[in-house]
Amino acid sequence: MHEFELIKNYFQKLSIKSPGSLNLNDDVFFDKKNKLVVSVDTYTEGNHFLDFKNPELVIKKIIRSSISDLICKGVKPKYYFISGSGNKKSFSKSNLSKISKALNQEQNKYKIFLSGGDTVFSNKLSFTITSIGFANNIIYRNKAKINDDIYVSGNLGDSYLGLLVLKNKLKLNQRLRKYFINQYFMPNIQLQLADKIKKFANTSIDISDGLLADLDKMINNQKLSYKLFLKDIPTSSNLKKVLDFKKLLKINCVSNGDDYQVLFTASKNKMRIIKKIAINSGVKLTKIGSIQGYIKKSSIIDDKNVQIILKNKGYFHKF
Amino acid sequence: MHEFELIKNYFQKLSIKSPGSLNLNDDVFFDKKNKLVVSVDTYTEGNHFLDFKNPELVIKKIIRSSISDLICKGVKPKYYFISGSGNKKSFSKSNLSKISKALNQEQNKYKIFLSGGDTVFSNKLSFTITSIGFANNIIYRNKAKINDDIYVSGNLGDSYLGLLVLKNKLKLNQRLRKYFINQYFMPNIQLQLADKIKKFANTSIDISDGLLADLDKMINNQKLSYKLFLKDIPTSSNLKKVLDFKKLLKINCVSNGDDYQVLFTASKNKMRIIKKIAINSGVKLTKIGSIQGYIKKSSIIDDKNVQIILKNKGYFHKF
Repeated sequence: MHEFELIKNYFQKLSIKSPGSLNLNDDVFFDKKNKLVVSVDTYTEGNHFLDFKNPELVIKKIIRSSISDLICKGVKPKYYFISGSGNKKSFSKSNLSKISKALNQEQNKYKIFLSGGDTVFSNKLSFTITSIGFANNIIYRNKAKINDDIYVSGNLGDSYLGLLVLKNKLKLNQRLRKYFINQYFMPNIQLQLADKIKKFANTSIDISDGLLADLDKMINNQKLSYKLFLKDIPTSSNLKKVLDFKKLLKINCVSNGDDYQVLFTASKNKMRIIKKIAINSGVKLTKIGSIQGYIKKSSIIDDKNVQIILKNKGYFHKF
Repeated sequence: MHEFELIKNYFQKLSIKSPGSLNLNDDVFFDKKNKLVVSVDTYTEGNHFLDFKNPELVIKKIIRSSISDLICKGVKPKYYFISGSGNKKSFSKSNLSKISKALNQEQNKYKIFLSGGDTVFSNKLSFTITSIGFANNIIYRNKAKINDDIYVSGNLGDSYLGLLVLKNKLKLNQRLRKYFINQYFMPNIQLQLADKIKKFANTSIDISDGLLADLDKMINNQKLSYKLFLKDIPTSSNLKKVLDFKKLLKINCVSNGDDYQVLFTASKNKMRIIKKIAINSGVKLTKIGSIQGYIKKSSIIDDKNVQIILKNKGYFHKF
């Protein structure tokens, strides 16, 4: 069962009286009256992270993944709660020191504060992060308009290459190895956008499952399609180098998620302000396609102006 | 390492800039400016619940355990978030239906609303519940005054007997089995107290780890001791019956936790209002002892006026 079926069949009806739940079909909970924005996510070893050999890196990854949900909706994260299940080995004194140090670094970088949590014994390691922020308004999913431009922040695909390196499925020199692994564990999430994005975006989501999977999610209740241009999807110079000499397809690299970049749509007349804010805030914002009516089929156009046929659009949680 | 050492050594310093975290030494997070109260707890199979043979009962237990944290501080729970890690068997269609039905019943009983969450794959079953409420003020830990009376709501010990029955460590007739098992899974938490307790309590906690362990926690930063009278600790008529014919000590039954009753202290001059509120709200509130100065040692006095010596005060999370 796909996660969205599970939510639809068993949980959506329970959220009807909680308007802030947004029908459990958005990235966050938003209680407008109390200006409260909440995100809850669970990360398990072997699933969201491969192992716990580098606790400080795992902690950074899951904190960024969690607050990314708020940032993409135009909300500055303020408080976080961390609940860890693990055994004596996972929570050894040495690991606890590393966890504490990493949390401190993330707190300073993103101006967030540890506010509570729990620790329980379990032989399976997992963390649940609850992130909280306050806002008068947020950017919702499913608010794209026909002819909107589609934008993405930063670069895509680096994180997936980091994962391939960690899984020993890709051999690279030491410098590139380090670069991609760092991008996997410490994605450049865009805190600066939290304040700005409401000025231009109609709808938004963060890319956790993959560009195409999250684009589908962003407009899953709308009768719309999209057209993307592969050549416009932004990648790092390091990724470009690897694509030149390894048998990797760009479309696969940018569709595998863990990027934690912001995907959004904006009306065409916002192009100037988007360019201006990109320059002023130092956040790369790239137009990669546009939203179309439902009559057309969604498509991705490659460098030779040919439509790409995809088997799999990214990562889905399945039971 | 005890849980409180772990918090003190590795996490307390991270919470300094989040005054609402209350130094991670209280039951909840309370952001006075935003009137926000949050509790986060993780429950794992084999630890907080024995198995998942009765999903509906496990769900009820963990929901009540979570919102009990808010209620004991004088806060009505409003929203909850549930994040479940489990495998296909745990989250089969049949189990999901039972989970959904149980959540619906708890929502109606306690006027709470599902507001979000997560589902992830794991062979180890666990749930993290985040409960949220709003309040202008809460009752804190460590605010007891010398000579305060110590009170507890409801009855203690039934839940522990339910656990003994479930573990096949206690044989009882069918009626009593059912009674205690129900008390274990569906403790009578006191939503009615949430509105009232601020009128009389100086400090409070809910009994999850055990009467004595939680009493110690409630005043762990205060130079105070307590004196309890065993005969005054309230128990159900069913528990009294079992104590009469089984080799069980009352002090052990009431010190093993999972009661989710409210433990609080109040000035002596609040006795009348406490009695009145108990009658009007239908919540049993029983005086079980008093707070003393630090010079005296804490003590529990048995029916023959003899002090009880205890080896173990209850359940502690240990790593």
